[in-house]
Amino acid sequence: MYVLGIDGGGTKTTGIIATSKGEVVAKATVGGTNINSTGKIAVQSELQKLIRELKELAPQNFLLVKRVFAGMAGAGNITNQDALKAILQPLFSSEVSITIDHDAITALYSGTIGKPGVVQIAGTGAITYGVNEASDRARVGGWGHLFGDQGSGYAIGRDALEAAFKARDGLIEQTVLSDLLIQHFNKEELPDIIPIIYQAENPKKLISSLTVLVMKAVERNDLMAKHIIDQNGAELGMAISALVKQLFSQGNDVIRVVLVGGLFNRYDVLKESIERTIKNEGIHVDIIFPKIFPAGGAVVAALLEENIEIDEYFLETFNRTNYDN
Amino acid sequence: MYVLGIDGGGTKTTGIIATSKGEVVAKATVGGTNINSTGKIAVQSELQKLIRELKELAPQNFLLVKRVFAGMAGAGNITNQDALKAILQPLFSSEVSITIDHDAITALYSGTIGKPGVVQIAGTGAITYGVNEASDRARVGGWGHLFGDQGSGYAIGRDALEAAFKARDGLIEQTVLSDLLIQHFNKEELPDIIPIIYQAENPKKLISSLTVLVMKAVERNDLMAKHIIDQNGAELGMAISALVKQLFSQGNDVIRVVLVGGLFNRYDVLKESIERTIKNEGIHVDIIFPKIFPAGGAVVAALLEENIEIDEYFLETFNRTNYDN
Repeated sequence: MYVLGIDGGGTKTTGIIATSKGEVVAKATVGGTNINSTGKIAVQSELQKLIRELKELAPQNFLLVKRVFAGMAGAGNITNQDALKAILQPLFSSEVSITIDHDAITALYSGTIGKPGVVQIAGTGAITYGVNEASDRARVGGWGHLFGDQGSGYAIGRDALEAAFKARDGLIEQTVLSDLLIQHFNKEELPDIIPIIYQAENPKKLISSLTVLVMKAVERNDLMAKHIIDQNGAELGMAISALVKQLFSQGNDVIRVVLVGGLFNRYDVLKESIERTIKNEGIHVDIIFPKIFPAGGAVVAALLEENIEIDEYFLETFNRTNYDN
Repeated sequence: MYVLGIDGGGTKTTGIIATSKGEVVAKATVGGTNINSTGKIAVQSELQKLIRELKELAPQNFLLVKRVFAGMAGAGNITNQDALKAILQPLFSSEVSITIDHDAITALYSGTIGKPGVVQIAGTGAITYGVNEASDRARVGGWGHLFGDQGSGYAIGRDALEAAFKARDGLIEQTVLSDLLIQHFNKEELPDIIPIIYQAENPKKLISSLTVLVMKAVERNDLMAKHIIDQNGAELGMAISALVKQLFSQGNDVIRVVLVGGLFNRYDVLKESIERTIKNEGIHVDIIFPKIFPAGGAVVAALLEENIEIDEYFLETFNRTNYDN
């Protein structure tokens, strides 16, 4: 039996055809398919391209695909889910079952392999999402960069800029962040970076990329950088704790918390404040990282919907056969 | 003797021809002329239109204009000042002296009538600017809404949104801001307002306009709204204090601080936190509000450059003759 898992994001979308044992037989990647930002026509064209490529890579297996699970960015509401289903269904024979879900589920399952738990996603943006044993779902945050991405890469970068300019204005102590920013943009003085940021094609992404400077400043023992990491780590810890309290009545169970996204490449720096905050909130969690490629979470979800158990060999097989060709 | 004062902002530009006694003989308003946001060609066209209208309104007086002072948004650097001068100079005979300056000076002089002091501008954005007895200048803040507008209308509106969504996520106490936001946008629940804000033509201005909801919530004794006002008022107080410390060695002098911009329509609400913060910083200031129309500050600046003293009848005459026709 074959399933197709799709992980649809804002900048790229990956599809994987795999067996119930975790063997990857085809994998393809196309552009972004967030229906909120990309527009329906473009999403349709990207998904058509994805399915066409998978079909070409494994024509025989494609015909045996029984279920499609698509975890899509922007598919949090019924309207968008229906729109995406209407795009995908005509690309398959009518016997194929198609489920459209939020991409946070794909991210969660890439760590819990289908078990309940919480996923904290933090890249440019941040959102906390969870599913409990009763399949109840809840979310915290993810309201966009203007007022809802506490603890995201964007928030950390913005805090660094704010600190550097406040130090320049004599409002707070000096910080090495100022020098790091000037060097990073190869400029003479801090105000020279203003037009670069405001005139950037994607200021949100540019600001988020400044996170690396904050990490560098922490390594140089800069107090302001440490404060920024402490604050944003605490925001992530609070979001995780709030979600655990909403979904789980914690007895002796330890809740799985999956950390997904570029920010956690530097979990060494963020670990202390995140874990301290969660502990202070009286929550017991098991922090884990993705065990498989993100689209693997969609494959797992598709198999679970077919009532197939994911055994211990699944992960090993999946990671062994999921190579880029 | 006649002078021409121009107050050039992001959305509108006003020019006034006045006598040394403060008598307004012509006044005209055209569109925005911030060279950073509007573009050189459009700025040129607006300024040409402004001068043409003034000339039509008072052809005889126009010929007797000896000096032009233009306080222009976005004219903080020499490059932009030179560009604006190159636009204005050909519109006058070569004997006319033209000075291009930052519009913060115009705002300052609308309150101090040419005397040194500090101006705190706070509308959608915020900037603190000052000039001392030695004509030294300094600024604090005004680095744009993404990381530099603490204490602005934008910051207050953003804080309100952040608080409402955090309350929804169970991260902080409930606040009436949530209900006020839902009512304001005429929606069912908080997440329904997300697309309205992110898809707005001008999200910055829309978020800034939410300040009125925070003021309303303060009147209903909402703790979160009070906290937001307290925090942002303190940011303004800190910016003013930092600027006073940079520019003035305070003996027994009381420094004039002019408050300009839409946010101060509700100074009744902001007063306590702003004045407490300044006092805690050990600074003595005299808080004042504009005494004349903004472009009047440019008229004052032009007269000062001609070494004309602004006497006590000036303001009375200016305000009496500066009517909209």
